[in-house]
Amino acid sequence: MRKVAVIGVGHAKFGRRQDVNVAELAFEAIKPALEEAGVEPRDIQYMPVGTIGMWYEEGLPAVIIADYCGLSGAGLARFEAACASGSAAFHAGVMAIASGLVDLVLVVGVEKMREVDTLTAVELIGRAGSYLWEFENFGLTFPGYYALHATAHMAKFGTTEEDLALVAVKNHHYAAMNPYAHLQEEITVEKVLASRVVAWPLKLYDCCPISDGAAAVVLASEDKVKELGIDTPVWVAGLGLASDSGNLTKRQSYVGLMSSVWASRRAYKMAGVGPEDIDCATVHDCFTIAEIMAYEDLGFCRKGEGTKLIREGQTYIGGRIPVNVDGGLKAKGHPIGATGVSMIV
Amino acid sequence: MRKVAVIGVGHAKFGRRQDVNVAELAFEAIKPALEEAGVEPRDIQYMPVGTIGMWYEEGLPAVIIADYCGLSGAGLARFEAACASGSAAFHAGVMAIASGLVDLVLVVGVEKMREVDTLTAVELIGRAGSYLWEFENFGLTFPGYYALHATAHMAKFGTTEEDLALVAVKNHHYAAMNPYAHLQEEITVEKVLASRVVAWPLKLYDCCPISDGAAAVVLASEDKVKELGIDTPVWVAGLGLASDSGNLTKRQSYVGLMSSVWASRRAYKMAGVGPEDIDCATVHDCFTIAEIMAYEDLGFCRKGEGTKLIREGQTYIGGRIPVNVDGGLKAKGHPIGATGVSMIV
Repeated sequence: MRKVAVIGVGHAKFGRRQDVNVAELAFEAIKPALEEAGVEPRDIQYMPVGTIGMWYEEGLPAVIIADYCGLSGAGLARFEAACASGSAAFHAGVMAIASGLVDLVLVVGVEKMREVDTLTAVELIGRAGSYLWEFENFGLTFPGYYALHATAHMAKFGTTEEDLALVAVKNHHYAAMNPYAHLQEEITVEKVLASRVVAWPLKLYDCCPISDGAAAVVLASEDKVKELGIDTPVWVAGLGLASDSGNLTKRQSYVGLMSSVWASRRAYKMAGVGPEDIDCATVHDCFTIAEIMAYEDLGFCRKGEGTKLIREGQTYIGGRIPVNVDGGLKAKGHPIGATGVSMIV
Repeated sequence: MRKVAVIGVGHAKFGRRQDVNVAELAFEAIKPALEEAGVEPRDIQYMPVGTIGMWYEEGLPAVIIADYCGLSGAGLARFEAACASGSAAFHAGVMAIASGLVDLVLVVGVEKMREVDTLTAVELIGRAGSYLWEFENFGLTFPGYYALHATAHMAKFGTTEEDLALVAVKNHHYAAMNPYAHLQEEITVEKVLASRVVAWPLKLYDCCPISDGAAAVVLASEDKVKELGIDTPVWVAGLGLASDSGNLTKRQSYVGLMSSVWASRRAYKMAGVGPEDIDCATVHDCFTIAEIMAYEDLGFCRKGEGTKLIREGQTYIGGRIPVNVDGGLKAKGHPIGATGVSMIV
């Protein structure tokens, strides 16, 4: 396949953003991304937009964002792959250039979830699972899903509530240094443990906030990188995309996510590397247990030994493999469609 | 780019499908597509799903469809590009193989619009434009948009209500022979003209029905075509994707769609052909005026001469260029996400 490079990135402030509409929020990320790449909106040939929507009157926002940001004319599509929507949009952006169809792509991730109240948001996100099965029959929402993972992990590997809290403490530590993060405060294990239970063993500080936010990256082909005279392109070495059953009863295991295992193995294979070659990582920590499972599913340690990494501080900067040093979903925020793009930024 | 072939297709019956849920409806199209290609669900590496959703409790249906159809494990994403959602999913499927990332893709288009009543459907579709601008301020819904196009075309080129009706008569003629079509009845110009006005000059029979439906195609790389021993692959020669402003006041022209012009020119260029080389076409005729504008925008005739083609019967089989001989959106139906995939089938 043709080589693909990231040549510009942009990031909006995550948080409660009642001051902007969805197009304005996207523009906060798009403007610096285009500027860094040194290209004009009219140069963009394809714009995949990661967003799950459901929150506001603009049901189909890609065209609205393109209008507002001067991108009309580009091929547009909105991508939804639940919490991996931004990642799916990035994947499509890479494919578009790798295939030879286009040379310059703007990948946008945006979500404005605070248009609805918290309970409505939880209900809508709950529909990302198997609605008729878990949600309708058993009332499971996402804190519930991850609580099941956490209790399974605790039962099988002796993971504790303190272990989960350590992840939150680390991610808040880094978010406090990230001007784009939603929650910019240091916390303690005691504070996590004392916070109210959302779905046991997950407490308020084990859960990511409900955020508004946007992120954008400009992707370019090798020819375009040369033409633009970009001297610091970041080449995409490998990527993988996988899914597992949305129906929990069909899954092989509750102590990990097979989709993460499959997708990471595809990406490692494509890049010709293994988990031991990775220097730092940005993983999906919508709930603290998710980050511990990710350590294991991505091969940074063996199954069940993820707690060891966080207990020893190995996922802090200076440790074996720093993880989520931007604050993660946990503290930077998780505006769903923006997340996968924000991870690239 | 790597060559991409269509090696299997499937199509569900379009219409009012209260007998199935969204996954079952998709399966009606997926099953024959996989069978024709001679592959198993587990062989599929990537499944883009074209659907705009908004109609039912399953807000994020890709994973539900994958579960039901045995495709868990494949990379999934839902695509929304308004009425071109199925086409955007097909475009992504081609990119995925052309890039070399995967060798076998299942593209699915599905929509179940009859879960809501007609007025709700019209309102939701209306949000595909610029909600805050046209919809909120002026109450414009899609019949209104296309009525503006029709009156502009009439004013500039002398197009008549009878010309529009001729398109409906042709497409109903072919739908009557298509077992998958929603409306399987021949009609007359008189019947169209006598039907009630929806948004003048568009009458009921100038408008496509609100349909449930699904379609699927299997795409394969050249290596995979050989490996499977497919002796009748249909190679993708060219494709193009473009957008125009969602805000009508920013458009250059009301007598055509610039996005169709740009996208078709990209596809012609990629295939190394011109409109004069095309033997037949499937175009977007959500309203009768859309088909006449498409004749012109795709270059089958000069601007303003589209009415001549339909008056002379040149877009019937046997004419210069048969168009929508499957019944078109007008009579086969327009389950939004399914449409772009159905056009390939």
